[in-house]
Amino acid sequence: MKKIGVFTSGGDAPGMNAAIRAVVRTAIYKEVEVVGILRGYNGMIAGNFIPLQSHSVSNIIQRGGTILKSARSKEFMTYEGRKKAFEQLQKAGIEGLIAIGGDGTFTGAKVFYEEFGIPTVGIPGTIDNDLYGTDYTIGYDTAINTALDAIDKIRDTADSHDRLFFIEVMGRDSGYIAIACGIAGGAELVMVPETLTTIEEVVQTINQGWKRSKTSSIVVVAEGDEEGNVHEIAAKVAARLEGKYDIRVSTLGHIQRGGSPTARDRILASRLGVAAVEALLAGKQNIMIGVVNDEITHVPFEDAIYKEKPIRQEFIELVRILSI
Amino acid sequence: MKKIGVFTSGGDAPGMNAAIRAVVRTAIYKEVEVVGILRGYNGMIAGNFIPLQSHSVSNIIQRGGTILKSARSKEFMTYEGRKKAFEQLQKAGIEGLIAIGGDGTFTGAKVFYEEFGIPTVGIPGTIDNDLYGTDYTIGYDTAINTALDAIDKIRDTADSHDRLFFIEVMGRDSGYIAIACGIAGGAELVMVPETLTTIEEVVQTINQGWKRSKTSSIVVVAEGDEEGNVHEIAAKVAARLEGKYDIRVSTLGHIQRGGSPTARDRILASRLGVAAVEALLAGKQNIMIGVVNDEITHVPFEDAIYKEKPIRQEFIELVRILSI
Amino acid sequence: MKKIGVFTSGGDAPGMNAAIRAVVRTAIYKEVEVVGILRGYNGMIAGNFIPLQSHSVSNIIQRGGTILKSARSKEFMTYEGRKKAFEQLQKAGIEGLIAIGGDGTFTGAKVFYEEFGIPTVGIPGTIDNDLYGTDYTIGYDTAINTALDAIDKIRDTADSHDRLFFIEVMGRDSGYIAIACGIAGGAELVMVPETLTTIEEVVQTINQGWKRSKTSSIVVVAEGDEEGNVHEIAAKVAARLEGKYDIRVSTLGHIQRGGSPTARDRILASRLGVAAVEALLAGKQNIMIGVVNDEITHVPFEDAIYKEKPIRQEFIELVRILSI
Amino acid sequence: MKKIGVFTSGGDAPGMNAAIRAVVRTAIYKEVEVVGILRGYNGMIAGNFIPLQSHSVSNIIQRGGTILKSARSKEFMTYEGRKKAFEQLQKAGIEGLIAIGGDGTFTGAKVFYEEFGIPTVGIPGTIDNDLYGTDYTIGYDTAINTALDAIDKIRDTADSHDRLFFIEVMGRDSGYIAIACGIAGGAELVMVPETLTTIEEVVQTINQGWKRSKTSSIVVVAEGDEEGNVHEIAAKVAARLEGKYDIRVSTLGHIQRGGSPTARDRILASRLGVAAVEALLAGKQNIMIGVVNDEITHVPFEDAIYKEKPIRQEFIELVRILSI
Repeated sequence: MKKIGVFTSGGDAPGMNAAIRAVVRTAIYKEVEVVGILRGYNGMIAGNFIPLQSHSVSNIIQRGGTILKSARSKEFMTYEGRKKAFEQLQKAGIEGLIAIGGDGTFTGAKVFYEEFGIPTVGIPGTIDNDLYGTDYTIGYDTAINTALDAIDKIRDTADSHDRLFFIEVMGRDSGYIAIACGIAGGAELVMVPETLTTIEEVVQTINQGWKRSKTSSIVVVAEGDEEGNVHEIAAKVAARLEGKYDIRVSTLGHIQRGGSPTARDRILASRLGVAAVEALLAGKQNIMIGVVNDEITHVPFEDAIYKEKPIRQEFIELVRILSI
Repeated sequence: MKKIGVFTSGGDAPGMNAAIRAVVRTAIYKEVEVVGILRGYNGMIAGNFIPLQSHSVSNIIQRGGTILKSARSKEFMTYEGRKKAFEQLQKAGIEGLIAIGGDGTFTGAKVFYEEFGIPTVGIPGTIDNDLYGTDYTIGYDTAINTALDAIDKIRDTADSHDRLFFIEVMGRDSGYIAIACGIAGGAELVMVPETLTTIEEVVQTINQGWKRSKTSSIVVVAEGDEEGNVHEIAAKVAARLEGKYDIRVSTLGHIQRGGSPTARDRILASRLGVAAVEALLAGKQNIMIGVVNDEITHVPFEDAIYKEKPIRQEFIELVRILSI
Repeated sequence: MKKIGVFTSGGDAPGMNAAIRAVVRTAIYKEVEVVGILRGYNGMIAGNFIPLQSHSVSNIIQRGGTILKSARSKEFMTYEGRKKAFEQLQKAGIEGLIAIGGDGTFTGAKVFYEEFGIPTVGIPGTIDNDLYGTDYTIGYDTAINTALDAIDKIRDTADSHDRLFFIEVMGRDSGYIAIACGIAGGAELVMVPETLTTIEEVVQTINQGWKRSKTSSIVVVAEGDEEGNVHEIAAKVAARLEGKYDIRVSTLGHIQRGGSPTARDRILASRLGVAAVEALLAGKQNIMIGVVNDEITHVPFEDAIYKEKPIRQEFIELVRILSI
Repeated sequence: MKKIGVFTSGGDAPGMNAAIRAVVRTAIYKEVEVVGILRGYNGMIAGNFIPLQSHSVSNIIQRGGTILKSARSKEFMTYEGRKKAFEQLQKAGIEGLIAIGGDGTFTGAKVFYEEFGIPTVGIPGTIDNDLYGTDYTIGYDTAINTALDAIDKIRDTADSHDRLFFIEVMGRDSGYIAIACGIAGGAELVMVPETLTTIEEVVQTINQGWKRSKTSSIVVVAEGDEEGNVHEIAAKVAARLEGKYDIRVSTLGHIQRGGSPTARDRILASRLGVAAVEALLAGKQNIMIGVVNDEITHVPFEDAIYKEKPIRQEFIELVRILSI
């Protein structure tokens, strides 16, 4: 393999730039040419390629976002779109791909390989940490620290006013961010999509806490909780608490995707980037590089996409004990 | 005066603890006893007083929120409530008050003085910076830096996805936070209650920016803008832009009230706290301590509450030039 | 067991408060009385005990330092000192101990148990991450992020002035902090006690980087490197580089011990705190609670203290590839 | 004037990029061509000029350092050097200059104007805040917040170990950073070059504090204090305190120059940048743009360089009262 391409796709995550840097420098170290593909699959279809040298990725390890930009591509979901992409890669002499993204990204890469034989190795870049086959995804550690910093700030005002706060964090299908923020933020309760928490339980927990002379409380809610969105949940709880507490809602939103990556995310991204290039050059394809028990693993795209990665139920219990 | 009380009231603001510390230590330095009144006027009515020593305020200068807690009191709005408060103060031997808060707090103090003759000196503590008679209020500098940090994070993701973001910051009646964040955050446009910005202007500015090959844009909106809340504004703009851009909305919310105060807020709070005790002991009442052109001022409560403090129109213009 | 004591000892680490909170609340949850021992073994000898309730540890999870204070005790190294400590514990009815600290702390606990039979369970709290039997120690994740934030700031000025910076991070006997900061900070080179890096190699790496048109460089040095302290190393390198580069030195120092703990450190501390109380109540003694491959482990004090925990040599290689 | 140049010179300061952005965009807004001169006067002599467009300064407002790089130039101190610089400017058609830097930078600009008639307008960019004619310089607000954050972290460990810390902050000739950090950091004492503080006074203050049951203390020392550097001061104090306290020293160093600028520094830099271009185009030269009482001022270089800007003595007193 003489020339490879690298791109970011789907929702951006802090640490993607650190991964791009690692990919580029490892390729150069291995004496392979490396090209950046802009805006994910859209840029592949359009032939938006830029040559990358070592200095192209200087001073980006600490930056949020992605210098290659990202997008979700509808055109790549069609055969026609993928054909165009293949032709662009051929024209540019790109023989292999490194895809940084989540399950949508890898689904596209898998189909693309099956149709056109372009080998792709994936790097898990998503704040949600919901990909099977890797203990951590790039961006997760930064996202939980960003959310936690926000929760700490909200606790200041919750505590000053004896309030009950419902705080929504990201995680449409997964409670990874919520559970980490709940434990680390000293929440009374965490509500996640994976586990049923009834309004009744919320009301009881709150009431018990205040009986033990708590004066402020925080409930962390994942966006995808089965009881509804955070405003609906807060309204239901408020109805049951009959005005006893001053209840507020805060949705953390897009700040969770940005910011300078943490040490962990940069190290993870660096390791995955090196390993991805090594795997691609060693003839691997259709796999995602992961980290399990701190060792590099190769996970078939199929597993990464379709297998479940459950959250630890003991962590839900941990919140309960520690909010006593 | 042998004994004074200090309390925080209304919305909390970062730096209130630094002000409490300064009040307590200055009182002790002047050999006056000082008592903390918990939860604002509610605690005054209930007689929730705690004696404060020098070490009571150790290690709090860096903390958000208020160790004396805060509240809005409905009972203090009645004559009966104020009478109870007066009796509690008399019983405890408290002869003067330092009130840390905003215009609601000072309105209460003014009436209270007129009815019961308890002298009060006010310290402006509110993130909104909308009090006449002081260039800055405690908490404003921290709030704009917190909001700015969030905007920086959102810019990472806006830029990675070529998005147009509408970001709502606090300021129900005032654009102080919005205008500062707009300039410092490199926004295309700022929408504040004090100035009319039509949807038409927003659409034009966005379109012009993208013609000049901008790929992402940020519009900062104060909560009290006359065009509606941030979701309504974004929807109106989206309707006019006909799907050309990927538009998102983010409401920063309560994080803006919390966090460790900045250097400026701590210094401001320290200076105001010292000056407030000095003024009270010198026989002043019904005044707020302010800082104008970096010098301490005494402002009658009446002025602080009722006079207008306009934002600088040149700053709106500044955003326009710098987003070219 | 009806009553247990908890204390922090040795160098403080961010997250110790989160561990104290977890210990206290788990004990209460298990209906066991819990007492805080102030200033480590010194406070045990002096009988400085304070009863702890659930609310005693409210709102501390996010705070650096330790509310129980810490110290190194010379008196506890003598039999006489330990005897006094034992008598104080007996008088207070304390039947078991949770010790939060590093190898010095656990050495003391081990001897104490052998002489007086007081069962102790240890929690690894040290920023150095050099304890065998646990993948991570409390404080390490925060320390590397604090150091990284400083390195990011120094890179700003290094880059603006085309400078070569030698940055010393903590780690007297261990390169854990240095290696993590080196990878995450995009350093050219990392110098750690565990591996020999000659001045010659440093000079070569720097020269090669600058030939490839690098204009600024960072070398991360652990305090305990065998080539001397950071000033000596910088001077030796400067002598060899013959004034070609503008060389500066920065020692990060004590900031690495402070600050609000990261999400990871709070979660780790919470898990370890719960598991420590459970182990003590289950009759365990002379063990440290650790986390290996994300699962709780019980490690004999002897192993934790005496066994080696090597750093990953591949990480040294990683720095070399990525600084190309 | 059809074409102007902008450069940064001397020590870098956070917010310089925000100033560059404002200069570039204002020039474009006024339909004047703008060129970036790399590495200060050295780049002027070497003719290292780069054309700047609006997008050249996109997404830099939040970055520390300077995209134009900075240097101190020995060659520009010679007539020969300045002549070369003049010839390069002539060749490039650059008719006026915006210089971002401190007194060394303005001294050079003044001489250059006198010899070659190139009009220059200066923007005060230095963390030290020691330039006459402006209340604040770009970078000062960020530097004090960075130093304060470090002091907060050190207080965590000082407090956990009952230590006395001497912390050195930047300010070779000026105590501006030290005094701000001293007030905001809750220091016992601040030692600045402008005021004599004897070792005797330090010893007394420390002893008095500990008599009032303080258990930890912080003394902030400016690098240029007349009693020597922070290590010498700490040693002298230690000798007098006869081992009563556990004394440590920390030098904050270069981190104070880096980091993302605060809201204030970005707003200040933006205002100064706009005003500088307006002044240059209006035919002004040999002046620095400043801000006094929140209004833009024009200060002759001569005044900015030679006049004294004293620190507020009342602030020294403030520290004394508040550390009671």
